[in-house]
Amino acid sequence: MESAIPSHLQTARSRHRRVPDDYAPPYPSFVARHTPAVASVIMAYFGVQYRGVDQAGFTNVVSVAYWDDAGRFDAWFAGAREAWTGSGAANGVGRFIEVLRPHVERYETLFSSLGRPEGVAVLADGMSGEVQEHAYWGGMRDRIPLSQTDAMTPGGEPRIVRDGARIRVVAHDNLCLIRSGQDWSDTEASERKMYLDDVEPVLREGMDFLRDDGVPIGCYANRYMRVVDADGRLTEKSYGQSWWKSLAALERWAESHPTHVRIFGAAMKYLSTLGPAAKLRLYHEVTVAAADEQFFEYLGCHERTGMLKAVQLAAAPSA
Amino acid sequence: MESAIPSHLQTARSRHRRVPDDYAPPYPSFVARHTPAVASVIMAYFGVQYRGVDQAGFTNVVSVAYWDDAGRFDAWFAGAREAWTGSGAANGVGRFIEVLRPHVERYETLFSSLGRPEGVAVLADGMSGEVQEHAYWGGMRDRIPLSQTDAMTPGGEPRIVRDGARIRVVAHDNLCLIRSGQDWSDTEASERKMYLDDVEPVLREGMDFLRDDGVPIGCYANRYMRVVDADGRLTEKSYGQSWWKSLAALERWAESHPTHVRIFGAAMKYLSTLGPAAKLRLYHEVTVAAADEQFFEYLGCHERTGMLKAVQLAAAPSA
Repeated sequence: MESAIPSHLQTARSRHRRVPDDYAPPYPSFVARHTPAVASVIMAYFGVQYRGVDQAGFTNVVSVAYWDDAGRFDAWFAGAREAWTGSGAANGVGRFIEVLRPHVERYETLFSSLGRPEGVAVLADGMSGEVQEHAYWGGMRDRIPLSQTDAMTPGGEPRIVRDGARIRVVAHDNLCLIRSGQDWSDTEASERKMYLDDVEPVLREGMDFLRDDGVPIGCYANRYMRVVDADGRLTEKSYGQSWWKSLAALERWAESHPTHVRIFGAAMKYLSTLGPAAKLRLYHEVTVAAADEQFFEYLGCHERTGMLKAVQLAAAPSA
Repeated sequence: MESAIPSHLQTARSRHRRVPDDYAPPYPSFVARHTPAVASVIMAYFGVQYRGVDQAGFTNVVSVAYWDDAGRFDAWFAGAREAWTGSGAANGVGRFIEVLRPHVERYETLFSSLGRPEGVAVLADGMSGEVQEHAYWGGMRDRIPLSQTDAMTPGGEPRIVRDGARIRVVAHDNLCLIRSGQDWSDTEASERKMYLDDVEPVLREGMDFLRDDGVPIGCYANRYMRVVDADGRLTEKSYGQSWWKSLAALERWAESHPTHVRIFGAAMKYLSTLGPAAKLRLYHEVTVAAADEQFFEYLGCHERTGMLKAVQLAAAPSA
C-alpha cells in the first residue's frame, strides 16, 4: 500500500487527509506515476462543432492530446492554434481549444485496473501499486498533492475576451476539470448487458443533468463523449468531461446529488454483484488549475459550448 | 445560518472543516443547544433482557435517560446500579447498563425539523437556527467541537473485567456511539406507506447487517429499537443505536457500504419525492467518548449483548 501522492511531492501538511493512517480501502486502485523530472503536463482538447446532435443540435468531435514538456508544447501550439481557430479556419464549422497546463501538484488520477492507461496516464512513466487514498468521499482531494497545504478555493468569476470572431474565456483560480471514463470492451455477454442496461442509462441521465442543469450547482459544462478510433469508428469506451467552479462543487455533486447518488448506487450494485471478476475498466483524472494554467478559445461555436456556458455572452463587454 | 459548533466551544483550529466557508446546505437542519454552563452530559441505557426475539432469541427492553449534571447523576447512580446489576437483581433475566458521560466537545446532534426534541435534545436549553455543517459526508465530524483540533483516533482494544456474575467491558479511547432515529407519527396515508414500504425495509436490512456482521467493519453492536410509551405500547418512533470502534469506522460504513448506500438512496428518493411537505422527522446524536467517559456492565446477558460482542468472552481472562 502506498500513498497516491508520490514521495517527491509529499510535504509538511497544514491540512489533514480525511481518513486515518490505518485506513485500508476495500478494493485496489492505482494512479499514474510520472518521473520526478516532470513538473507539469498539458491537457489539450481541440474541438470541431457542426450541426448534428448535442443539446443544441450540434455534433462535437474532440481530439485530446497530452504533453509533459511545456517547452515543446508551446513551440508547437502557436501554429496549431492559428490553424485551429485563426483567420484561416473553415467557415460554417465551430472550433474550440480548451487547454489546462497544471503543475503536477494540481491533479490526480485513479484507475480500477492496470494494463490499459488512458488520458494523462498514457504519458506517465508507469503506474503505482495499490494506493491508500480511494474508496471514500474526499479521496479525490486527498490524492491531489496540493491538498496537503491548500483548500483550493476558487477565486473570481469567469469573463470573456473578444478577439475578432474568437471568444476567449478567462476563468478563475482553481477551476476544476474532471475526465471520468469507462471501458467495457473486455466485458462478455452478461456483464456487458448489465453495464449497458443497468449502469449506462443512469450514467447518461447524470451526464445530461450536468450538461443541461449543472450551472446552479457549479458545473459550468459537461460533455459525455464516446471515444472513436483512428478511422472514426465508435469504440467501447466513453468518458464524461466536465468543468467545475471548484473541486468542492464537484465533491458536493458526487456525494449527495440525486443524479450521482443513483450513478454511484448503480455502480456499487454492479461491482458488488460481479466482484473481482468485473471486466469493466474505470478511470478518472481531476485537475484543479491555477488561473495562469488555463486557455479557452471558441470560434463560431454555439453559446452553450464548453466554458462559454460559464459566462453570459449577451451581457459580456467586448474587449 | 450558524455553525453547529456553539460560539463558546469554537477554538483555534488545527484541523479544517470539509466544506468551504461559503458552503450552503440544500435543506435546513438544526442542532440541540445547551447553555454554556453545561460541561458534560450523561447518556445512560438500562436494559432488561429475557427470552423472546433478538438475534439470539431474546427481547431487550431499554430505558434511556439523560442528565446534564454529573454530580446529581453520580449521587443517584450508585444505588441505581446496585439495584439493576447488583446481587439482588432478579434471576433468569439479563440486565445491562451502558453509560457515556461525554464532555460537550465530544458529541453532536442533528434534527430535520423543530418542535419535537428527542434524546439528549430533550435536556437541552433549546434548538439552533439553521446550521451550516450538514448534508455532506463529514458533516457529522465537523459538528463535533473536538474535531477542530483532534482526529479522534481510537486507542487500544476492548477488554473485560469479571466482577462476580457481572461482566464489565472496558472499551478504549474515542469509542463512538450513534443513536439515529425516525418518527413517522405525523405522516399521513401516502407518506406513511412510502416510509413503511420503501424506506423501513431497507433501513432494517442495514440495521440487521450491523447487528449480525458489523464487527469486521468496526461496528461492535447495533440495536434497532422501537420506542414504547409509558404503558409499553409501540409508538411510531424507532432508532438505531450502535457502538463503533471509531467515528472513522462509522463514517466509512455510512458513506460507502452497500447497506447504507441503499438506506441513503431510499431516503434521498423519499425526501426528493416529498420535498418540504415530508412529515417524517429524522434526528441523530453521535458521541466520541474518552476512555474515562464510558461504563458497560452486563449481568446474565447472552454473549452477543451490546459491548460484550466487542470482546471474545471465551478467550478473555477473568480479573
